[in-house]
Amino acid sequence: MARPAARPDAAGKLTRAVVAECVGTALLLVAVVGSGIMGERLSDGNVAIALLANSMATGAALVVLILTFGPVSGAHFNPAVSLADATQGSMSWPTAGRYVAAQVSGALAGVAVANLMFDEPVFAPSRHVRAGWPLALGEFVATFGLLGVIWSGSRRRPAALPFAVGAYITAAYWFTSSTSFANPAVTLARMMTPTFTGIRPQDTPMFLVAQVLGAAAAVALFRWLVPVESVGPSLARHEAQLRSSHSA
Amino acid sequence: MARPAARPDAAGKLTRAVVAECVGTALLLVAVVGSGIMGERLSDGNVAIALLANSMATGAALVVLILTFGPVSGAHFNPAVSLADATQGSMSWPTAGRYVAAQVSGALAGVAVANLMFDEPVFAPSRHVRAGWPLALGEFVATFGLLGVIWSGSRRRPAALPFAVGAYITAAYWFTSSTSFANPAVTLARMMTPTFTGIRPQDTPMFLVAQVLGAAAAVALFRWLVPVESVGPSLARHEAQLRSSHSA
Amino acid sequence: MARPAARPDAAGKLTRAVVAECVGTALLLVAVVGSGIMGERLSDGNVAIALLANSMATGAALVVLILTFGPVSGAHFNPAVSLADATQGSMSWPTAGRYVAAQVSGALAGVAVANLMFDEPVFAPSRHVRAGWPLALGEFVATFGLLGVIWSGSRRRPAALPFAVGAYITAAYWFTSSTSFANPAVTLARMMTPTFTGIRPQDTPMFLVAQVLGAAAAVALFRWLVPVESVGPSLARHEAQLRSSHSA
Amino acid sequence: MARPAARPDAAGKLTRAVVAECVGTALLLVAVVGSGIMGERLSDGNVAIALLANSMATGAALVVLILTFGPVSGAHFNPAVSLADATQGSMSWPTAGRYVAAQVSGALAGVAVANLMFDEPVFAPSRHVRAGWPLALGEFVATFGLLGVIWSGSRRRPAALPFAVGAYITAAYWFTSSTSFANPAVTLARMMTPTFTGIRPQDTPMFLVAQVLGAAAAVALFRWLVPVESVGPSLARHEAQLRSSHSA
Repeated sequence: MARPAARPDAAGKLTRAVVAECVGTALLLVAVVGSGIMGERLSDGNVAIALLANSMATGAALVVLILTFGPVSGAHFNPAVSLADATQGSMSWPTAGRYVAAQVSGALAGVAVANLMFDEPVFAPSRHVRAGWPLALGEFVATFGLLGVIWSGSRRRPAALPFAVGAYITAAYWFTSSTSFANPAVTLARMMTPTFTGIRPQDTPMFLVAQVLGAAAAVALFRWLVPVESVGPSLARHEAQLRSSHSA
Repeated sequence: MARPAARPDAAGKLTRAVVAECVGTALLLVAVVGSGIMGERLSDGNVAIALLANSMATGAALVVLILTFGPVSGAHFNPAVSLADATQGSMSWPTAGRYVAAQVSGALAGVAVANLMFDEPVFAPSRHVRAGWPLALGEFVATFGLLGVIWSGSRRRPAALPFAVGAYITAAYWFTSSTSFANPAVTLARMMTPTFTGIRPQDTPMFLVAQVLGAAAAVALFRWLVPVESVGPSLARHEAQLRSSHSA
Repeated sequence: MARPAARPDAAGKLTRAVVAECVGTALLLVAVVGSGIMGERLSDGNVAIALLANSMATGAALVVLILTFGPVSGAHFNPAVSLADATQGSMSWPTAGRYVAAQVSGALAGVAVANLMFDEPVFAPSRHVRAGWPLALGEFVATFGLLGVIWSGSRRRPAALPFAVGAYITAAYWFTSSTSFANPAVTLARMMTPTFTGIRPQDTPMFLVAQVLGAAAAVALFRWLVPVESVGPSLARHEAQLRSSHSA
Repeated sequence: MARPAARPDAAGKLTRAVVAECVGTALLLVAVVGSGIMGERLSDGNVAIALLANSMATGAALVVLILTFGPVSGAHFNPAVSLADATQGSMSWPTAGRYVAAQVSGALAGVAVANLMFDEPVFAPSRHVRAGWPLALGEFVATFGLLGVIWSGSRRRPAALPFAVGAYITAAYWFTSSTSFANPAVTLARMMTPTFTGIRPQDTPMFLVAQVLGAAAAVALFRWLVPVESVGPSLARHEAQLRSSHSA
């Protein structure tokens, strides 16, 4: 509404966006790891009840974190999303790099806070085995679906996107064999908690590869399925800037 | 917004719509069958906990899949919906035929992916008994309600329709004795998984008949209860075209 | 939008509204009673799990039924709501009488369908004891809250009202000692099912009295707390007519 | 819409707002404490199932209470929110004082009603131990997140705020080790119930201190992250008044 200021304001916006990605991803990991610990401790060994709590808490947290930080940074919280945007020209590569760094460091900070809240060591490697081709397929499907949801939702139903992403992850915790990490920053950070939601370090490379492939497949399909409306190049670029809520 | 191009663009829109029906229905079956397997495996034999997970995951998946694919194809994912539209003139019969073919093949593909993700055979016939008149009544009620919800919602509250359909199915898994298949493509595909959500091939004809009768009853009641607003024939047709998001 | 036709159209609107109240209340009872039966049968005697299913299914069903039938009848499904409207002049007494008759007969039909779907007798008296002053207080609180939510929501946030009512009932099943019937038609109908959600006939009078008192207290408080905007009498009346979606 | 009347009307608005804070906070405590009792009684000692019910009921209640009372008072129900507003000049200190008094007395009344509904003594001190630094960190995180959500949501996505707060608390019950009180009035009132959601009186000071620190940290971060749009001082003040829905 107010006339935009010059470069300094743009720089301020980018700084705020990067901090929002860091704090938001930290809170996402607090939700994922914290609710996993609480669920496992209280459920008397019934893993389905623990996963009900974990999936419901993670989905609800995503809704609220995207509503809260979306207007500041676009609320990616996920390197797969930022890098997909960069490949499509919706975000510059340097900005995407800053986003990814903020996401990974935020994710690690969130795991540390969750561990401390529940009286676990700040960081400790997970021994939770998550291996085998069926889980790789699960992670491919999980990331393919997530990127498709975000691609279509951010272009066609942006007001509903926070609810769409939260609903997707709650469901995908159950319908994929890998319980749907679907996020490289989340995957790396979850190596560092010796609790319900952890993943053994040696299992992460397969998860990361499956995520990259799933994201690439989603971009390939959805850029054809839900094309950017043909409203002229400058307007499209403007829209993209608004969507990612910064101007770098 | 842009001026519509000639036939080629219309053909492109229809192709995209058919692909969206196929991919969307596949992901719906991944959600239904996958969350059923995960729920059964983790719940230590407590079927209610498995069904809580299955119903919550399916409802949440429907919300997000309708949000994601609705702008491309109308997100039917269900031959009962497409054929009901054809009987009412909202969709041409050839288009409805293409939709149904895409839905059935997508549903089968989704079952295969779910089976593979959880290390089951690609396809295997179900032995899950679902027989008896009470279940037929359940399936009649389930499809009657679903078609009524879609009829009214698509005409009066389109922005809320994804949430309405998701909430309906989550509830109907519990309140109908048949756990609410309410969808011929879903019914056929669920013959092919030897897991929680399967259905014995010999039980499917009764389900399909009940679904057709339930859908017909809903159309008969709701076309009177929620009539198309009297805004002239050409405008109504235009609206119908927009609703089904293609122009064939 | 179109200019209103003369009496015949108004009569048609009222007929549709009354049928909508009947069908909608029937489906509400199908959801309440059906999900209670399914929850109890599958939960191995853990009543909390049965109530989780029952409360989630009932709340989700309310969301979708209000979205579906709201544009036709206002989606009261509850004599306490219709009679409260009549006392405030938002609805004529004869119309309120027709609504109540439709709600009670629809509720009975819904219980019959639910019983049949689950292979129970069409009607059979419940032996479920629900007595004592704490439960009466529970029912007073439940109805007070429900009427307050509807009063404020229908006047200030009508688009969110379906979600508000659904969320309220899901919560109130848990936070009131009576599991929140909050509806005289529902109370009468639930006498006729020998299952989880039934109520002994001799316990219903106390429930009905508590519901009337709770509704009266809500109207007394909320007509002061959330007054009708002072926009002139004719406009207010017009708004009320729109809200109840008929013109008798 | 109507032209604002003089002082008397402003006084009436403030009175209604204070009553709304009192009644709304009472109903919030009815939901928190009541659903905790019901969950514990029905869940056969499985604490995870009790907390699933408690967290779902509390979150759903928050959604509906904020929708219902938000247009009257802003629906704070929380001294941390009112006092944060006062420090930022969005609310006068005397008004904030009245809000806090209404919230604390409402919270106590709500606990009394919940206790009575479930046949417990009106008030009785809790013996539920909630001590130790990990829980203090939990309460700091819980309040930091809640205030951040409210800060950003009320400024950028006000229509979605009721859903955001409800989703946040449902999640935070699970992801914080303290089960997320995040509210001084709630904390004080929960000393007075000898049931699932109680807290020993001697444990409350640590909770209150952690809540104040968490709220202060959130205000410090989010006033920079989500600044008030620079639309001139008088307009900003006007917007703030609208947001808190009174004019003192």
